[in-house]
Amino acid sequence: MGEKFISERNLKFLLYEVFNATAITQYPYYKDHSREMFDMLINTAMRIGKDMLYPCLGEMDKKPPELVDGHVKVHPAIKIFMKECGEGGWISATAPFERGGQQLPSIINFIPNYIFAAANYSASAYLLLTTEAAHLIESFGSEEIKEKYIPKMFSGEWQGTMALTEPQAGSSLADIVTSAEPAEGNYYKMRGQKIFISASDHDGVENVVNLMLAKVKGSPAGVKGISLFVVPKKRVDESGDLVPNDVNVTGLYHKLGYRGCPINQLSMGENNDCYGYLVGEPNKGLSYMFQMMNAARLAIGLGATAIASAAYYASLGYAQERLQGRRMTEKDPTTSQVPIIEHADVKRMLLFQRAVVEGSLSLIAQCYKYADFGVVLTGHERERYELLLELLTPIAKSYPSEMSILSVSQGLQILGGYGYCDEFPLEQYYRDTRIHPIHEGTTGIHGITLLGRNVTMKDGAAFRIFLEEVQKTVYAADTVNELKVYAGELKDAVEKLQEVTSHLLKMAKEGNREAFLADATLYLDLFGIITIAWQWLLQAVSVQKALNNKENLSEEDIVFYQGKMFTFRYYFGYELPKTYGLVKRLLTTDGLTVKMQAGYFLD
Amino acid sequence: MGEKFISERNLKFLLYEVFNATAITQYPYYKDHSREMFDMLINTAMRIGKDMLYPCLGEMDKKPPELVDGHVKVHPAIKIFMKECGEGGWISATAPFERGGQQLPSIINFIPNYIFAAANYSASAYLLLTTEAAHLIESFGSEEIKEKYIPKMFSGEWQGTMALTEPQAGSSLADIVTSAEPAEGNYYKMRGQKIFISASDHDGVENVVNLMLAKVKGSPAGVKGISLFVVPKKRVDESGDLVPNDVNVTGLYHKLGYRGCPINQLSMGENNDCYGYLVGEPNKGLSYMFQMMNAARLAIGLGATAIASAAYYASLGYAQERLQGRRMTEKDPTTSQVPIIEHADVKRMLLFQRAVVEGSLSLIAQCYKYADFGVVLTGHERERYELLLELLTPIAKSYPSEMSILSVSQGLQILGGYGYCDEFPLEQYYRDTRIHPIHEGTTGIHGITLLGRNVTMKDGAAFRIFLEEVQKTVYAADTVNELKVYAGELKDAVEKLQEVTSHLLKMAKEGNREAFLADATLYLDLFGIITIAWQWLLQAVSVQKALNNKENLSEEDIVFYQGKMFTFRYYFGYELPKTYGLVKRLLTTDGLTVKMQAGYFLD
Repeated sequence: MGEKFISERNLKFLLYEVFNATAITQYPYYKDHSREMFDMLINTAMRIGKDMLYPCLGEMDKKPPELVDGHVKVHPAIKIFMKECGEGGWISATAPFERGGQQLPSIINFIPNYIFAAANYSASAYLLLTTEAAHLIESFGSEEIKEKYIPKMFSGEWQGTMALTEPQAGSSLADIVTSAEPAEGNYYKMRGQKIFISASDHDGVENVVNLMLAKVKGSPAGVKGISLFVVPKKRVDESGDLVPNDVNVTGLYHKLGYRGCPINQLSMGENNDCYGYLVGEPNKGLSYMFQMMNAARLAIGLGATAIASAAYYASLGYAQERLQGRRMTEKDPTTSQVPIIEHADVKRMLLFQRAVVEGSLSLIAQCYKYADFGVVLTGHERERYELLLELLTPIAKSYPSEMSILSVSQGLQILGGYGYCDEFPLEQYYRDTRIHPIHEGTTGIHGITLLGRNVTMKDGAAFRIFLEEVQKTVYAADTVNELKVYAGELKDAVEKLQEVTSHLLKMAKEGNREAFLADATLYLDLFGIITIAWQWLLQAVSVQKALNNKENLSEEDIVFYQGKMFTFRYYFGYELPKTYGLVKRLLTTDGLTVKMQAGYFLD
Repeated sequence: MGEKFISERNLKFLLYEVFNATAITQYPYYKDHSREMFDMLINTAMRIGKDMLYPCLGEMDKKPPELVDGHVKVHPAIKIFMKECGEGGWISATAPFERGGQQLPSIINFIPNYIFAAANYSASAYLLLTTEAAHLIESFGSEEIKEKYIPKMFSGEWQGTMALTEPQAGSSLADIVTSAEPAEGNYYKMRGQKIFISASDHDGVENVVNLMLAKVKGSPAGVKGISLFVVPKKRVDESGDLVPNDVNVTGLYHKLGYRGCPINQLSMGENNDCYGYLVGEPNKGLSYMFQMMNAARLAIGLGATAIASAAYYASLGYAQERLQGRRMTEKDPTTSQVPIIEHADVKRMLLFQRAVVEGSLSLIAQCYKYADFGVVLTGHERERYELLLELLTPIAKSYPSEMSILSVSQGLQILGGYGYCDEFPLEQYYRDTRIHPIHEGTTGIHGITLLGRNVTMKDGAAFRIFLEEVQKTVYAADTVNELKVYAGELKDAVEKLQEVTSHLLKMAKEGNREAFLADATLYLDLFGIITIAWQWLLQAVSVQKALNNKENLSEEDIVFYQGKMFTFRYYFGYELPKTYGLVKRLLTTDGLTVKMQAGYFLD
């Protein structure tokens, strides 16, 4: 019980039946890959998840990182894992061959990350941060910086981080004050404070490479004056030795969950000896950082889904074994109790969990598929998928993050009192997954990004393309007898989304910007529910295709597809109707939360 | 920041402006009380909350109870608090004069409990359990048992508990196996195991009085064979000394939250020396225990609301002080950042918190008012209020419990990364309040109680009376210009509730019992949202009455009433529409979760 944390069957269903993941290998850049390699990679990742990461999940939570003499000690498993991440090529997987990578498509690369996160979310963060930081250097760093940092990061010897937040600048990056002063030589002198920086110091690696936002003295105010720097914990001096770089850990946060990974407070330049190396051009730092932020946002959505998956299988295992009560129709108390999975209310909770997990994962796979198209296509075609990915990123981050909390909570509920106690992992998942709507942009920020920027960018092109993609799925489903009704329901929901969008954009045009964005979070909710409905309908088309050829299916296959169909129907029956209330609210233009005055909260 | 945990202004608004709490003192039983005494009692409770309970909130969480040599050690504050509970008369407050109580009406007695729970939920549980256990003995115990136990419990020297759950019998009490064998003399020999028993052993008291369900050997199967016993930790022997009663603590649970109160595993009769004393008649134990369970359910709703209140004021305090970002209309990054309470999205989250807290508290006050009528009235009038209280108990337990989680989570979200860390109390509140949908009957169980029993009991009388009560409020609101629209919205929602109820009852009549109850949890959600809307409309009537006489109001009053009105409008604008999706689902009769087979979850 609790040992299963993901479904390999579902991963393969998504990869090969829904998203035709091998198709990308037809493009020259990805031509060295094949289904056999994909499957092998999944097997290896599962072994690491099961043998290395899951076994220390609880221990990493119970023995969180400690700050000892200014240095952070983490669980010894991290050192072993980072070594494996280097040697197994997990950090470098999607990098080009010439950088030592394997040119792995994202549609397959996300799978090991998902498996690791489901087995042990905290551990997976070390890997992801290093991968994404290395990619950021690869995209915008000078050749010198690339050569100095990337190999050590790919080998897992040096940790990567993203260092953005400051005490006075959380959601408002415009207000960062960490400063960079040009020095003689090819570097800047850094001075400032960063807070909430994951993995920015730990003894599982030899060095840490902070990708840090700072302001060059004299640069413009606000986001236009932000530059990107590499600020290593230790720098390489002239003789090639690693020496301290005046980056000091001044605090370690004690967190609700996600305790296997340290979140530190850093102080740069206390001794005026902190070197930073400019990445790309000055004042373009935030636009560069968006690459890492957007990658991290998908990864957060993935991580939230992974925890929800682990929680789902833990509660499913419990529900199958725990005997309690009798069927509603059984009044004789001398009959045996039944496993609680026989109770409709428990099945409802399990279906909710599964619907969240498999719906979210489908959207994330969809996004990675778009990311691959962004690599292999050109011109208008490329732009199409880049726009789709950009539009959907806030949703792929936020829907899984918010819904992971609710689905893990339902999983905990299935275990009753046991769910509240630490003999079972549910209470840890409940704590761990609460971070996701906070880091990499709060849900509120993503709502504003979606409504205030993404749906209108390029004259609404991204939103139009999204509607086309959904429409394709609606058409496909409409040709399948069993799905006609659902195709109609999605069509109706999308029309409502368009109506709401037009209504809100009209407010914006009328200059009512505060009221326009006041309920952006609810708009994000609405958009999210409908987007996941689209993904469920997409899956249902594949499922029905398989079920319509039942003679080719094994018993296990039929069980899997039947479960899929019920989960799909659950989603349309129980989740999609939540749009009704959201639509009602979003079409109301009373500006209530704008008019409410701060002073009225006093009493 | 964080020091305010409840609003006294709101308490007094509910007591004196909405529920006319002093009216009950017109009845002879309560005639010795007055508004002056009520206010004094609130002051005293606030002092205890602020000076004794709140200061050790975090410490009790960080240093949870320990099991040492078979005995549970708790935080030293508990001993001091239990002494105060005895000396201050907090345990005995509602008991009759002749038992040493003060005959305090419930409509005022719930206030100190609320204040204590908001200041420190874990601590408040010791008090509540003792109060309710003593009342159970008072209602059904023999004079001998009453005399032996009640004075020691009222004095805070002996702790009361409710001991129901067993390893194989959580939600299914029919399956308890703890046995009671009649012995020579006025007692039974007890044998069995109980789990998840709050405060059933601790060093803050001299003794523990477990109110325990067990089966007398040879009694009928199922709930019809359950009897109620007093099973003390130490019993009084013939010479009047306290001697061990063979009740052993075999385990202490490590919990997500609510850590200041131990939850133990008990083993009775390991040495065949555990005495139990029958309360009332054999085989009537469960019906007796319902008195304590129902009281505890209201207390859980109260506790959940109290935590939500403390979380609300903690996040409000943060939002008022934390500077971050600028208004949507301000594009100049050199201007000062504003307190985040100026952002519409933050105000929305605060309004949600406040709407949950003040809506829930209003319903709970309403229930206690009905409870008082149950004491002073007779005949049909009495039955009316008893039925209302019975109907509403699952809602007054479940709505606050479920919504406390969501509202505390929003409070945590307001603090961003800080909300996830233990420098602020939000993360503790988030953990603490997760227990509420579990203990005293899970939400699923309450859904079944409401739909499967309460709405149909006495031929639907309780439901009819509820509709009448809501109708009264609708009529009253309809006469106030500012409230007409909302009165109409509540009327519509109630009509939908009736439609859904008829629809479901039709399924029950057709013999489709499993499908009838499959979505009982959603029915409970729907009923809950509408019930709280009723309570908000009730409050709004009082608020508008006050605002229509503005000349009599102070600045503070106007601020308070304006805040109330916005919160009321928030509830109708954002929360009530959630019924739309629920109604849609509840009118769908596909029996989806019944048809879904357990086997389909395999993959």
